Amino acid sequence: MKTEDVRPIKIEEGILKVIDQTLLPGTVEWKELKTKEDVWNAIQKLHVRGAPAIGVAAAYGVWIGLKDCKAESLASLQAEFRSVAEYLNSSRPTAVNLFWALNRMKDVIDNAAGLWGPGGEKEDGWKGSLMVSSAKNALLAEAEAIHREDEDNCRQMGEKGLTLLAPGMGILTYCNAGALATARYGTALSPLYLGQEQGYNFKVFACETRPLLQGARLTTWELQQAGIDVTLICDNMAAAVIQKGWIDAILVGCDRMSANGDMANKIGTSTLAILAKEYQIPFYVFAPSSSIDLSIETGKEIPIEEREGEEITEMWYKKRMAPGGVKVFNPAFDVTLEKYITAVITEKGIAYPPYMGSLETLLKG
Amino acid sequence: MKTEDVRPIKIEEGILKVIDQTLLPGTVEWKELKTKEDVWNAIQKLHVRGAPAIGVAAAYGVWIGLKDCKAESLASLQAEFRSVAEYLNSSRPTAVNLFWALNRMKDVIDNAAGLWGPGGEKEDGWKGSLMVSSAKNALLAEAEAIHREDEDNCRQMGEKGLTLLAPGMGILTYCNAGALATARYGTALSPLYLGQEQGYNFKVFACETRPLLQGARLTTWELQQAGIDVTLICDNMAAAVIQKGWIDAILVGCDRMSANGDMANKIGTSTLAILAKEYQIPFYVFAPSSSIDLSIETGKEIPIEEREGEEITEMWYKKRMAPGGVKVFNPAFDVTLEKYITAVITEKGIAYPPYMGSLETLLKG
Repeated sequence: MKTEDVRPIKIEEGILKVIDQTLLPGTVEWKELKTKEDVWNAIQKLHVRGAPAIGVAAAYGVWIGLKDCKAESLASLQAEFRSVAEYLNSSRPTAVNLFWALNRMKDVIDNAAGLWGPGGEKEDGWKGSLMVSSAKNALLAEAEAIHREDEDNCRQMGEKGLTLLAPGMGILTYCNAGALATARYGTALSPLYLGQEQGYNFKVFACETRPLLQGARLTTWELQQAGIDVTLICDNMAAAVIQKGWIDAILVGCDRMSANGDMANKIGTSTLAILAKEYQIPFYVFAPSSSIDLSIETGKEIPIEEREGEEITEMWYKKRMAPGGVKVFNPAFDVTLEKYITAVITEKGIAYPPYMGSLETLLKG
Repeated sequence: MKTEDVRPIKIEEGILKVIDQTLLPGTVEWKELKTKEDVWNAIQKLHVRGAPAIGVAAAYGVWIGLKDCKAESLASLQAEFRSVAEYLNSSRPTAVNLFWALNRMKDVIDNAAGLWGPGGEKEDGWKGSLMVSSAKNALLAEAEAIHREDEDNCRQMGEKGLTLLAPGMGILTYCNAGALATARYGTALSPLYLGQEQGYNFKVFACETRPLLQGARLTTWELQQAGIDVTLICDNMAAAVIQKGWIDAILVGCDRMSANGDMANKIGTSTLAILAKEYQIPFYVFAPSSSIDLSIETGKEIPIEEREGEEITEMWYKKRMAPGGVKVFNPAFDVTLEKYITAVITEKGIAYPPYMGSLETLLKG
């Protein structure tokens, strides 16, 4: 599988398929998601993960959840939508792309209702069921647009991010902010792919990212496909490779950024940001605009998902590694304060501190 | 098994036995170490681990390696000792207790030779073989003294460390600096056991400590035995629990400290020290004097062991978690700079910055 081919979500013959990322790197298996429950499970169980990819999957999930519904008016389609969206919404709480995608899908139905009236009666007398059918097609088209735009945005982030890097640099990255987390290219890994095409010869260090090892399983696999020099380390070894002078920049993704630049990303990210400050290394956050939530002011307002303790105590292969009955705390994300972030790379450009202001200007400009 | 009973090394009927810590917490199995090769393997493969416990095992290892040797003079026993010591010395490079213990054993033979002359001829005409036999007994007695002193020292460190803590505190600890790493009580965990007896009700957070999970497997198990409230987290979650305000002090052990207070400990320790500084939490290092190496000035002179990559890629149970052929960097320790260390607790007292001076005064005072 070449880099160009790592696209973890696809529609084939009208069926949504995702690579089951829990089986990587050992097995590349496509799972068919035929019901909204399939989509919910795929997101909750991390078969599809990464904020942008979750957004794409959720958008398709709305269409899947509504395409066979019996609504005969746009008003009842709207009601059905609310139920489907609320359901998908409950799959994971932290990444804002999920809500963002659901909102875009909502706008499609609302626009149809606004155009045609909630009863689906248009001036030319088309029946409600036809309006509903047309709205369903528009939902699929919107999901496909979100999917396609994500690929474009990742490419844009890669090009903009690459301007911050130089050939031969040592790069530290965390979790998986790569093609597997998006439609294609990735967010933080996108500039590495583009740089590789241009002979940058980055030396990449990938933190394994406990407990679910997205770095060990996904990031090293992706980068290997592209022939990029990658070395795997445990999360607690980041300071050691920095101390050795091997790291010129730290590149991470983003699950949700508030208006002031605080941002939630995979648990452990904030530690890398603090190390970056301590060792005076640039800390770059790759955040597609869909992950920036201007409606909240600071990171304190971002809900942090807690997952089951067995992810830690039983490791990946369900062998128990801790005594029975031990208490476990397992937050899936942490918040990195804006003061540690050197720059935020979006598809629209690069924002610098102070982010309260620069982010909004960039997004709305 | 009660706390009082966690003593990972013992001599029974003249045979050295250690708990095989690679099998914990699932299985408590005592391994008999009958040859110097057994001792070397037990140290290298981490059946016995933790700087103080390594020192104790190595001391017994010298006795085991020499007790059946055919030397008929103290000079040939000295020659044999050099070979055994060099061999055991090669088992692990970072913890200085290993060399410290070997040096104490060397002194025993050297003293005998000094007293009796290298030929083992004493004034009263005893034969060389009798001198050798007597020296062998002295070697066993010295190993037992090291063993016993380690228990005393740990108790002392516990009492001194407890003066820095208050009831109800939240404590973060790393790797296993407990009874299993020593003769008894542990270093950093010793004050927690003593506090527990006095109703301190600490709330302890144990980092799992990748790649070999000494925190998940050993520390939580030990603390559970004593009924101490312990919660397991991944290493990358330390910042998250600190941010929540749950941590009042960070307590860690020490594999080797240089004269200026820099110290090597389990990989990841230095990250916790930097977090402690960033969040203004005291960072306490528990270092028995046997782990303080005044012969080197700074941490730059401490050799850092690198272990095989499979410890990371194949996890504990030999299931591969990373793609084939991926490069791995696996340092077993890192160096924490003295500037991050709030205090150093030894069995002789507590040293404060500047350590260049205060450590030597404490140790020699």
